[in-house]
Amino acid sequence: MDTQDLPFVPVSGVRLAAAAAGIRYRDRDDLVLVELPEGAACAATFTRNAFCAAPVTLARSHLARTTPRWWLINAGNANAGTGEQGLADARASCEAVAGLTGVPADQVLPFSTGVIGEHLPVERIIAALPGLLANRGEAGWPRAARAIMTTDTQPKLVSHRFEIAGRIATLTGMAKGAGMICPDMATLLAFLATDASVDRHLLQELLREAVDASFNAITVDGDTSTNDSCVIAATGALGNPAIADGDSADAAALRSALHAVCLELATAIVRDAEGATKLVRICIEDAHDSEEARRVAYTIAHSPLVKTALFASDPNWGRILAAVGRAGLADLAIERVRIWLGDVLIVEAGGRAPDYTESAGVTVMRGPEILIRVALGRGRARTQVLTCDLSDDYVRINAEYRT
Amino acid sequence: MDTQDLPFVPVSGVRLAAAAAGIRYRDRDDLVLVELPEGAACAATFTRNAFCAAPVTLARSHLARTTPRWWLINAGNANAGTGEQGLADARASCEAVAGLTGVPADQVLPFSTGVIGEHLPVERIIAALPGLLANRGEAGWPRAARAIMTTDTQPKLVSHRFEIAGRIATLTGMAKGAGMICPDMATLLAFLATDASVDRHLLQELLREAVDASFNAITVDGDTSTNDSCVIAATGALGNPAIADGDSADAAALRSALHAVCLELATAIVRDAEGATKLVRICIEDAHDSEEARRVAYTIAHSPLVKTALFASDPNWGRILAAVGRAGLADLAIERVRIWLGDVLIVEAGGRAPDYTESAGVTVMRGPEILIRVALGRGRARTQVLTCDLSDDYVRINAEYRT
Repeated sequence: MDTQDLPFVPVSGVRLAAAAAGIRYRDRDDLVLVELPEGAACAATFTRNAFCAAPVTLARSHLARTTPRWWLINAGNANAGTGEQGLADARASCEAVAGLTGVPADQVLPFSTGVIGEHLPVERIIAALPGLLANRGEAGWPRAARAIMTTDTQPKLVSHRFEIAGRIATLTGMAKGAGMICPDMATLLAFLATDASVDRHLLQELLREAVDASFNAITVDGDTSTNDSCVIAATGALGNPAIADGDSADAAALRSALHAVCLELATAIVRDAEGATKLVRICIEDAHDSEEARRVAYTIAHSPLVKTALFASDPNWGRILAAVGRAGLADLAIERVRIWLGDVLIVEAGGRAPDYTESAGVTVMRGPEILIRVALGRGRARTQVLTCDLSDDYVRINAEYRT
Repeated sequence: MDTQDLPFVPVSGVRLAAAAAGIRYRDRDDLVLVELPEGAACAATFTRNAFCAAPVTLARSHLARTTPRWWLINAGNANAGTGEQGLADARASCEAVAGLTGVPADQVLPFSTGVIGEHLPVERIIAALPGLLANRGEAGWPRAARAIMTTDTQPKLVSHRFEIAGRIATLTGMAKGAGMICPDMATLLAFLATDASVDRHLLQELLREAVDASFNAITVDGDTSTNDSCVIAATGALGNPAIADGDSADAAALRSALHAVCLELATAIVRDAEGATKLVRICIEDAHDSEEARRVAYTIAHSPLVKTALFASDPNWGRILAAVGRAGLADLAIERVRIWLGDVLIVEAGGRAPDYTESAGVTVMRGPEILIRVALGRGRARTQVLTCDLSDDYVRINAEYRT
């Protein structure tokens, strides 16, 4: 597999390998092992789906009590909805890595993505581990980014360089996800690493912030996955004094890099969403608070009628207006609501804006990226959500996924 | 148009006519006028969408201060998102009916359904009124039921006979709706009439009850319309003593008839939903309260992944499980949740039921009507929601609707 086309910057000490373990697919990589250097700080966010997958349960518990040294990631099988057997399978996979590498099993974090409800083929995973250990290296990111894909058509790999204490630090991350995307606290598998030295608690705080503004602000179909996980390692190979003060200039530089990388990965996920032909940015302004701003944004983003109109490049603004109206805002004064498509004002005073023309709307809708902006006229809160259109290909992909 | 195939029972004194006014469609009826006898009690429920249509605003206000004598209904134009002009247009339509019939304008209730955001062609409506008045009759229900259709493929007309005070009473109703269906307090246009004499306040109470258990428990796409309205007239032509006591045997008979007619119309709407190939009944049991039962039911009913699996007849129960898990129930003990497809137990103890086989699931999923039953193991509340699958035809219909 040619992976030379994906630009990235390696993170010193973070070694990756991918292999075709035959978990579900034939003749493609589907298993990834990532080694972290000793002493790397690690932080993560996980799905809030109550039916969270076995690897989520185990990774959360391992992370709470140890500093992880290994991430084990498989595609093709989510190990979700698998009950006690699923936990035992995830545990056995971690123990196999531990046995070969001489670390305790709880220093291994497992991640899975793929079909729900089938048992993990643990033997195939274990059989592939020696090869993964032999082949791991700092150049392994592109092949790993491809190995974790399911219905994705493009790998998502992003690097960002930034300055810490006078040195050039690196932040590199990969993600996967194309369906069952409405992350609630993290998205379906994102892995990041930086060579900066960062206090673990601050790292968790910064990750949470960045995830809320990126992975937690995208939606493809409103279906929050059972397996969403976003994890970051800070290796400290850069040699900077550990960043521990959230108000410091170093923390600001890291925060900014983390936001940029997470947002770029999240945007790549929406761009590559199942069947999507458009990237749609929904901006809600002048809301009373951010909770109601999010509610309006997601009501628009999840409306099948708005999404099919976007697919058709049809400036059917009545559907946007209807979505705003049904978002459940108490005492919404509709005469104060204004709605724009791109820069074109389409709704004001409870109806179509006087200067609006259908041809102006069509011009905006024909673009590959569309902005829907809604000013509620109720306050100063705002939010932004990224989504995509709903095409016949989405239906086809999801009607055929298991068959 | 041959309307002899639609069985119904006329309601004495309720006279209907339909005509092709050219509002949007060519060569088909799109305007209906309904006359109610003097003294008929009238009750209604309307959408809670904040961007409610001009006719909804006007009908609500007219109903609050008078006893209506006329319903004026048009298809092809929703008169929603039309601001002040929309209200003026709806008012002008009512005034035209009033002028020709000698009643005050507020005794006319207007209803509209169709495209949002275009101004109502009032002149064409006014021009069609004399013909409607000349042709109205008690046999007009089938033609009216067809005239109010938009993307519907089948008219929805239901009659029910029941006994009041030793006499045989009639309840007849018609409805339309195939998309933008997630009624919140009523559905997109349902019109009912009975010859029983009923106190107006009790009629409103009974209508509310019946609507909550029928139109308010269906969803096609989660998009609550701007125009949802359900209205009933009780003419009193039966000559029974007016039913005023909600606990009486007569009220029970009416309640039962009303539930039956509303549920049959609501089911017909889901059956005829845009692109639908399956009727899906979602039953939630053992919930802590009915609010959380509804939340779980609608999370499943609105999941594009569940809906596309239903379209594919794929027993992809992992998607149902994931939907239950993301419904936001606090402290959900997933090991107590059980999920059935029809009579087949598919999930228990956090994973696939031991006896479940894919072939048993496929057999259920291949049927035209599918039951998804979820027992939450948290209490005694239950609810039922009707929905449909999501097909490529839904996307096609809604991507092409305006073009």
